[in-house]
Amino acid sequence: MPITTLAFDGDDTLWHSETHFAVTTDRMIELVAPWIEGNLAVDALLDVERRNLSIFGYGVKAFILSMIETVIEVTDGQIPSAEIHKMIAWAKELLDHPVELMSDVPATLDAVAGRYQLMVITKGDLLHQESKVARSGLSERFDAIEIVADKDIATYERILQRHGISPSEFAMVGNSLRSDVAPVVALGGWGIHVPFHLTWALEHLENDDLGAHALTAAGLRDVPEILERIGTE
Amino acid sequence: MPITTLAFDGDDTLWHSETHFAVTTDRMIELVAPWIEGNLAVDALLDVERRNLSIFGYGVKAFILSMIETVIEVTDGQIPSAEIHKMIAWAKELLDHPVELMSDVPATLDAVAGRYQLMVITKGDLLHQESKVARSGLSERFDAIEIVADKDIATYERILQRHGISPSEFAMVGNSLRSDVAPVVALGGWGIHVPFHLTWALEHLENDDLGAHALTAAGLRDVPEILERIGTE
Repeated sequence: MPITTLAFDGDDTLWHSETHFAVTTDRMIELVAPWIEGNLAVDALLDVERRNLSIFGYGVKAFILSMIETVIEVTDGQIPSAEIHKMIAWAKELLDHPVELMSDVPATLDAVAGRYQLMVITKGDLLHQESKVARSGLSERFDAIEIVADKDIATYERILQRHGISPSEFAMVGNSLRSDVAPVVALGGWGIHVPFHLTWALEHLENDDLGAHALTAAGLRDVPEILERIGTE
Repeated sequence: MPITTLAFDGDDTLWHSETHFAVTTDRMIELVAPWIEGNLAVDALLDVERRNLSIFGYGVKAFILSMIETVIEVTDGQIPSAEIHKMIAWAKELLDHPVELMSDVPATLDAVAGRYQLMVITKGDLLHQESKVARSGLSERFDAIEIVADKDIATYERILQRHGISPSEFAMVGNSLRSDVAPVVALGGWGIHVPFHLTWALEHLENDDLGAHALTAAGLRDVPEILERIGTE
């Protein structure tokens, strides 16, 4: 069955994101260096993010709240609050950062335009994701933009149902096996993984053997050809 | 023209919200009491929230980030970071708080069920609003749930277009003149204001003369009768 609808993830698929989070994490390491070694600080941050995920969700505000919690804990409350004030400024910088498209985005969208119904399915802060879509200059190229709190099977199922799309004619392109590929494949759809060299630890997937409907593209530019191959199978 | 679609705001219309924010603000006042008088602390918080609104948006995470920024500023960095750790815990309490329905919600929904297409249109953190809708036990009663970053004219226009609803057959019920009534009336729809005794200062509207399509209900229970009056005009 040929693919009729193609959806792209936002962060680290259409535009850079993790790079900016990594820069901010480096700043935190520097700030707490008088108290704790860098790798241990990063581990502590990940632990806090993991335990806060179900209540704070994804995005910059959740990240900075977890970071504030972490630096207070790893310094045993010794970090001066003026340093925490800096972290609020980092949150604003992250939210206000210009959108930088990933390589090959315009060329890839040109190649698939008119051949498929095109969507963005992205998760995180509603306001920030809307602002990134708008500032990306790409919104006119998509038939639908879906901003979701989490990318689990139920989320994809709801989106496909609402748009009247059968999973077997749906392909999702993204950098996260956990969020973009596994749940779509579980529904009977197609997942195309486009790895990015930075992946947030909480997006890692232990078992990455997802079967024949999970494909890998070296870059976005290879996606159109992969889709054509699916259609002729 | 009779009303075909009726939408309800979430926070302080279907369930309590501002009450919990007020309790948290009181806790902040207590925390900074050694440095600054209560009213001045609240004014400072509002100033910070106002300047952060366009970048942080609405909701608990934005509120607590602005509160952390405020307490550091009003204490000139003197507040110990252990006190800031408490504020992160307050964020979690707010996000995890049981949903308490406002009075008359079930009875009002019973009275309008089957007569109108029913929606919720609510703003704030995506994850938190989804969780409140789910925990309210009301989701099955609505035909659509719309969680938005802001409630301006463009937002309502987009929702009405997507659902194929003409503004003149649409009524929005809510506690905020600024967010629930004014933009809907501006589009040619109907706004029914159900005041709640607590209103966040940033929801106040200077000019509250919104014309004949802006109506007021003493309580949710009066909404069905108001709708019937509109239909027969």
